Amino acid sequence: MDTWMRFMSSDGGVVFGRVEGGYLHEYESLDQPVPTGAVLSTRALTPLAPCAPGKIVALWNNYHALAAKLGKPVPTHPLFLLKPAGSVIGADEPIQRPLSYAGRIVYEGELGIVIGRRCRDASVEEVAEAIFGYTLVNDVTAADLLNENPHFPQWCRAKGFDTFCCIGPAIVSGFDWQRARLVTTLDGVERQNYPLADMVFSPAEQVSLISQDLTLEPGDVIACGTSVGVGSIRDGATVSITVEGIGTLSNSLNAARAAAVAGAEPVVASAG
Amino acid sequence: MDTWMRFMSSDGGVVFGRVEGGYLHEYESLDQPVPTGAVLSTRALTPLAPCAPGKIVALWNNYHALAAKLGKPVPTHPLFLLKPAGSVIGADEPIQRPLSYAGRIVYEGELGIVIGRRCRDASVEEVAEAIFGYTLVNDVTAADLLNENPHFPQWCRAKGFDTFCCIGPAIVSGFDWQRARLVTTLDGVERQNYPLADMVFSPAEQVSLISQDLTLEPGDVIACGTSVGVGSIRDGATVSITVEGIGTLSNSLNAARAAAVAGAEPVVASAG
Repeated sequence: MDTWMRFMSSDGGVVFGRVEGGYLHEYESLDQPVPTGAVLSTRALTPLAPCAPGKIVALWNNYHALAAKLGKPVPTHPLFLLKPAGSVIGADEPIQRPLSYAGRIVYEGELGIVIGRRCRDASVEEVAEAIFGYTLVNDVTAADLLNENPHFPQWCRAKGFDTFCCIGPAIVSGFDWQRARLVTTLDGVERQNYPLADMVFSPAEQVSLISQDLTLEPGDVIACGTSVGVGSIRDGATVSITVEGIGTLSNSLNAARAAAVAGAEPVVASAG
Repeated sequence: MDTWMRFMSSDGGVVFGRVEGGYLHEYESLDQPVPTGAVLSTRALTPLAPCAPGKIVALWNNYHALAAKLGKPVPTHPLFLLKPAGSVIGADEPIQRPLSYAGRIVYEGELGIVIGRRCRDASVEEVAEAIFGYTLVNDVTAADLLNENPHFPQWCRAKGFDTFCCIGPAIVSGFDWQRARLVTTLDGVERQNYPLADMVFSPAEQVSLISQDLTLEPGDVIACGTSVGVGSIRDGATVSITVEGIGTLSNSLNAARAAAVAGAEPVVASAG
């Protein structure tokens, strides 16, 4: 198992590489995993989300326990929505309540698959080399928007807000997901604790089947869906998602008022 | 009104700029619209989709005539899904039938808004400068997948396949959409002919309201939704979408067998 992280350096550059004993061994990139020779102390670096996905494929109803609780049959093909690249934040970055939304905001602790190679119409056998590693995802949802319109479930809107896709803290390659459990705590109180082996579609099956629908690119993330124990985050609360071997992804929810102070005022960027 | 296009040059580079009288006046980029001074004959260039969106926001139920036909109330906020960047092709590129799908494939002729500046929580007044211009979109859909699973409408999957977002042929800035009609033909037979002024949310309202949900980036495209006259494309047929002042976007549907010959065989790219 290797642990991979992405950081901002003090000069504003982005560095990616393998982390061991407090040092980053820099690599060219996730899809060009060639060492540059540089070794940097992580103490001088600011952690970022461990990859920069062009898209996030987020699964619904992919755990037997949740399907049973919802009273829904398990699907025959992965059911997914897309979260945009702009929704991604890393560990310890704040989830921002949208200025326009005062309703319930919900956490979902999930395993994330990080794609390492372009992948289209690939068999289950072929995808093994396309999976770079595994990370953690908090698939945040503005729950009251989902069914606000009775004619069109608003999955992309409810899950697509800026900061609503927390990814991190690291990508672990060679990780054996089959024996691991995912634990989610809310302000330190355990809310989810489920075995990853309860998945309907395994990571390899997900990558293979989804690659029949759209081309997966290096850095893309598949959020494997959540299981039972989903709940609301009140403003100021902290959600922590842990899988032993990968680490802990913690993010707090900022109220919209605080968000405005921190820079979420209206923006139409000048052309530079 | 200016007409903007993007091309591949003979050396494989991508050039963007203003087209006039058969010549491309090259500009740095869509979000840095500064002339480079280069002027190139378009005859030596291969047209591409006129922008490279990071995401495509595709609206549902945004025309009064279609809402009336469907018997649905018009929405109070834009209803949308996301199409991935990998679904984009330009004018005259083939739509590829997915290898895994033998069902109905449907065209939807739509106006496209091209974003020129980063835009978040922007008012209707503020977005005028954020709209770079207008283009045409064929929002292709694998219609039989939409409601294949009764518990989860698969909007992103049905509309997210590679080649299922045709964009082009050009972006026109300063275009007055309010007096224009959109005409879609299937193998030369008119199937859609509707006034853009029948939209529920105007382009400025769409950009403003959607910018409350997610940050719009330069090059992103909002597909404004379609109106009545949607229908199936049989393999080999050509869909042409025309708005006077913007041009005509034509794309043919390749059968999966042809697609396989043309390079859609299973791919797991090597990292080299």
